[in-house]
Amino acid sequence: MLRNERWTVTNTQITHIQIDNYGPWTVTPEPRREVDLQTLQSRLYADLAQLFGNRDGYIFFSRFDNMIAVTNGLDEAAHALIQESVGNRYPVTMSLSVATGTTPVSALGTATEQLQEAGSAQDKGRREVLRGQTIDEQFRKETDVQLAHFDVDDATEKYTDQLNEFDTFIQIEQGYASLMKYMREAHDSLSFFVGGDNVIAVCPDLDEADYHDAINHVREEVDVELKVGVGRGRTAATAGMDAKHALETCRATGEAVTIETGTTE
Amino acid sequence: MLRNERWTVTNTQITHIQIDNYGPWTVTPEPRREVDLQTLQSRLYADLAQLFGNRDGYIFFSRFDNMIAVTNGLDEAAHALIQESVGNRYPVTMSLSVATGTTPVSALGTATEQLQEAGSAQDKGRREVLRGQTIDEQFRKETDVQLAHFDVDDATEKYTDQLNEFDTFIQIEQGYASLMKYMREAHDSLSFFVGGDNVIAVCPDLDEADYHDAINHVREEVDVELKVGVGRGRTAATAGMDAKHALETCRATGEAVTIETGTTE
Amino acid sequence: MLRNERWTVTNTQITHIQIDNYGPWTVTPEPRREVDLQTLQSRLYADLAQLFGNRDGYIFFSRFDNMIAVTNGLDEAAHALIQESVGNRYPVTMSLSVATGTTPVSALGTATEQLQEAGSAQDKGRREVLRGQTIDEQFRKETDVQLAHFDVDDATEKYTDQLNEFDTFIQIEQGYASLMKYMREAHDSLSFFVGGDNVIAVCPDLDEADYHDAINHVREEVDVELKVGVGRGRTAATAGMDAKHALETCRATGEAVTIETGTTE
Amino acid sequence: MLRNERWTVTNTQITHIQIDNYGPWTVTPEPRREVDLQTLQSRLYADLAQLFGNRDGYIFFSRFDNMIAVTNGLDEAAHALIQESVGNRYPVTMSLSVATGTTPVSALGTATEQLQEAGSAQDKGRREVLRGQTIDEQFRKETDVQLAHFDVDDATEKYTDQLNEFDTFIQIEQGYASLMKYMREAHDSLSFFVGGDNVIAVCPDLDEADYHDAINHVREEVDVELKVGVGRGRTAATAGMDAKHALETCRATGEAVTIETGTTE
Repeated sequence: MLRNERWTVTNTQITHIQIDNYGPWTVTPEPRREVDLQTLQSRLYADLAQLFGNRDGYIFFSRFDNMIAVTNGLDEAAHALIQESVGNRYPVTMSLSVATGTTPVSALGTATEQLQEAGSAQDKGRREVLRGQTIDEQFRKETDVQLAHFDVDDATEKYTDQLNEFDTFIQIEQGYASLMKYMREAHDSLSFFVGGDNVIAVCPDLDEADYHDAINHVREEVDVELKVGVGRGRTAATAGMDAKHALETCRATGEAVTIETGTTE
Repeated sequence: MLRNERWTVTNTQITHIQIDNYGPWTVTPEPRREVDLQTLQSRLYADLAQLFGNRDGYIFFSRFDNMIAVTNGLDEAAHALIQESVGNRYPVTMSLSVATGTTPVSALGTATEQLQEAGSAQDKGRREVLRGQTIDEQFRKETDVQLAHFDVDDATEKYTDQLNEFDTFIQIEQGYASLMKYMREAHDSLSFFVGGDNVIAVCPDLDEADYHDAINHVREEVDVELKVGVGRGRTAATAGMDAKHALETCRATGEAVTIETGTTE
Repeated sequence: MLRNERWTVTNTQITHIQIDNYGPWTVTPEPRREVDLQTLQSRLYADLAQLFGNRDGYIFFSRFDNMIAVTNGLDEAAHALIQESVGNRYPVTMSLSVATGTTPVSALGTATEQLQEAGSAQDKGRREVLRGQTIDEQFRKETDVQLAHFDVDDATEKYTDQLNEFDTFIQIEQGYASLMKYMREAHDSLSFFVGGDNVIAVCPDLDEADYHDAINHVREEVDVELKVGVGRGRTAATAGMDAKHALETCRATGEAVTIETGTTE
Repeated sequence: MLRNERWTVTNTQITHIQIDNYGPWTVTPEPRREVDLQTLQSRLYADLAQLFGNRDGYIFFSRFDNMIAVTNGLDEAAHALIQESVGNRYPVTMSLSVATGTTPVSALGTATEQLQEAGSAQDKGRREVLRGQTIDEQFRKETDVQLAHFDVDDATEKYTDQLNEFDTFIQIEQGYASLMKYMREAHDSLSFFVGGDNVIAVCPDLDEADYHDAINHVREEVDVELKVGVGRGRTAATAGMDAKHALETCRATGEAVTIETGTTE
């Protein structure tokens, strides 16, 4: 499949979400019960998945105390409301910093810098920071966001139904560790494990050869076989759904890389 | 600190939790919205954290569609109630298989095998399996479970406040990938990332030298500096809380390894 | 305070939400555990509170299996997304019917009729109905929604700190039962208990005398003393927040009725 | 059906749960968004339904900021863990007071008094109170708890499928208001609306004639026709499940009152 010539540079809007002074809170005055921390973190993430997701954004849990979201289409007011809603319902607060860039890495770089300038992640006095720039409606395009949805070939047959669950998990995890590092270093992309054998990468304007390159790298480094569907859209929701459909096409055709070109254009 | 001589072999009870036929469900009849899947997965995990945790167990999300729990103290009736409660409240069901062993890896191995014998993870007809053996109350001991709580030295100062969030995440992730593989292969342990810069490992009867060995391996392989607190107890909750206190001792003393010996004996 | 002359007729958009075939589901194949049903119902309501609320709507739990929402500003696509999101994450589905009217009662009447025409609440074949008309953006006005926020005078001092909790609850409940019936019959309004000693009423264009009339009725019928703040807005969120501020004014001034006039105009 | 002669006096353990200083918190520094308060309240209730329910207790939301639970079988440690878990995960804390009595009303009376003695519900300094006595394991009996599960005859056919949803709700609500007041005054029982057309009452040792009396009262006062299933057990979970089965028997036989006698003895 040829690369669609009308595709141009991406314009990804990235939000860095950081729970304020979370580490110290978890051990003050005594270490808190782990199951409560796990519950708090995963419910906060679930809430943010809905809050960003219902505005067509995507959020990834990454480290849970620091999360990364693709927020094209969310303006400052939407960010402020999300921040306030969490502050109203959780024992912790969170800071948000948003930025845009032609690659996801450069956007995140700016977002994190703005947050670091406001104070340390463990600064007691730094709470509910909200900084940065969103993309003006007039400058948004149908091609702003590119998402790639990877999964592992025949994971159920090769791993889940054969190995003990931790050894399966090691395979998936080593594949993810290899992919996320390579995609960042070679392709300025941010890749996130999203459960099962799935990884979603937020990418700049990569083409089919780039994805083959990444898949080859992971095969060679850790012997895990991936395939990927790629979508493009005005928002993360659109690009992500196209990527899912493209991955279904891979399953049907046996191709390792499918770039969805029709739906969003 | 010398190893406590009264410590003996562990007897870890491990439960393998698997969402029934989840992969196909996520794309039937069409791929479902990613934010809803993320919400479903993280809320299910949060609920299980409470359901197991309020019976003094620990559960780790690992791949979300397959989870691993330390369940010393939970009998078959408790497992059945958890299974029923999820079936009553979610659009998916889950199968549970429980086993015990002198190492966590051997316990999990048995648990997974029992599940695989009942059918494939993507078998449409295999639903709400509940299999295995729990430890009879009379055979339970104060030393059955050993947990180790690792974190990264000065992660906030060295990474979070310096690098962009994804590059910080890469450091944490590479450290985790190295640790989880090595602890499994060299020390029969199951290690899980639990957010921030924290990893909890379910271990057999390892001693201080074993933990130094693991920390050295990660430093050499990926240049990430870890410390670890270790606890031992009748349940995951007790062992885990002791491990947290031991890690606080590391922070106070600068030691890389602290094994809590007092509280539970 | 005089009635603001610029206020005109309301145009409330009401959505009737009904869980499909819920009663039979709760007892099939056997009665399900009550705590799971309670958890399911209250979490579904919480999710809908966020899903509608983050689009500036309000939803009331009323009977939990049937809920009523004020949805000015939510179009059909928003309703469809909410319906799909619940279908993706719960073991039950829900039908939605939306209508508008110059009084909340007439809007709800139309909404319920549309649903009844589609089939019984316990019709096995009727699932995920989505019917009705929303207000076109061009016809929306700053005065479309009128909300009144009632509370009980000195409830903590008179009841909570004096009586056993159930006898306090009886006072609040009798006050609510009296108010909700009278406001419906005399003033075409829909009144909902929202916890504590608070009731929120969705009203047509009522004036100060109407609210005094309702308060007098409740005092005479069940000897419970109410006060009320009233707000008006383009959405439930705006009208509701104005009503809260008006109620704070009642607390400060001792007035039984305060109609907020400034903020939204 | 004759009353089972072996049934004797009940011994209900009741816990009064109160969110500390909640009213002031909801308006400080400004009134908080209603949808966030509704989400917070209903999720807290859902969590408590699981926390109490998985120990075979029942909790009712009543006013949400004050809740009432039947806690036979939960000792002080279980109460403390529930209190701590909520404190770890919510922006508010809660106080708990537990007491026992031969009637639910007398148990609750003692529980509330203990809480009132500790300070006002809106006392800023009174936080996380935990008071009272639970029943020693040796004194617990299979007949300690009596629960009655009421519903409205043919509610779907007579109301839900005929009236607008608010007019249906008025019928249910007036029936509940009548029942809850009468059962408290005439029969020392605590009755709670639990959604749909269902009410669960926590009762002393009432017999069939008592339930007919209550049903007759509601019919005469507000023209709502009820039926009821009654169960008895060592815990709320057992008694409640028996009551559900008894109500199913009413549906099958057309009897207005069924008292389950077999299962728990």
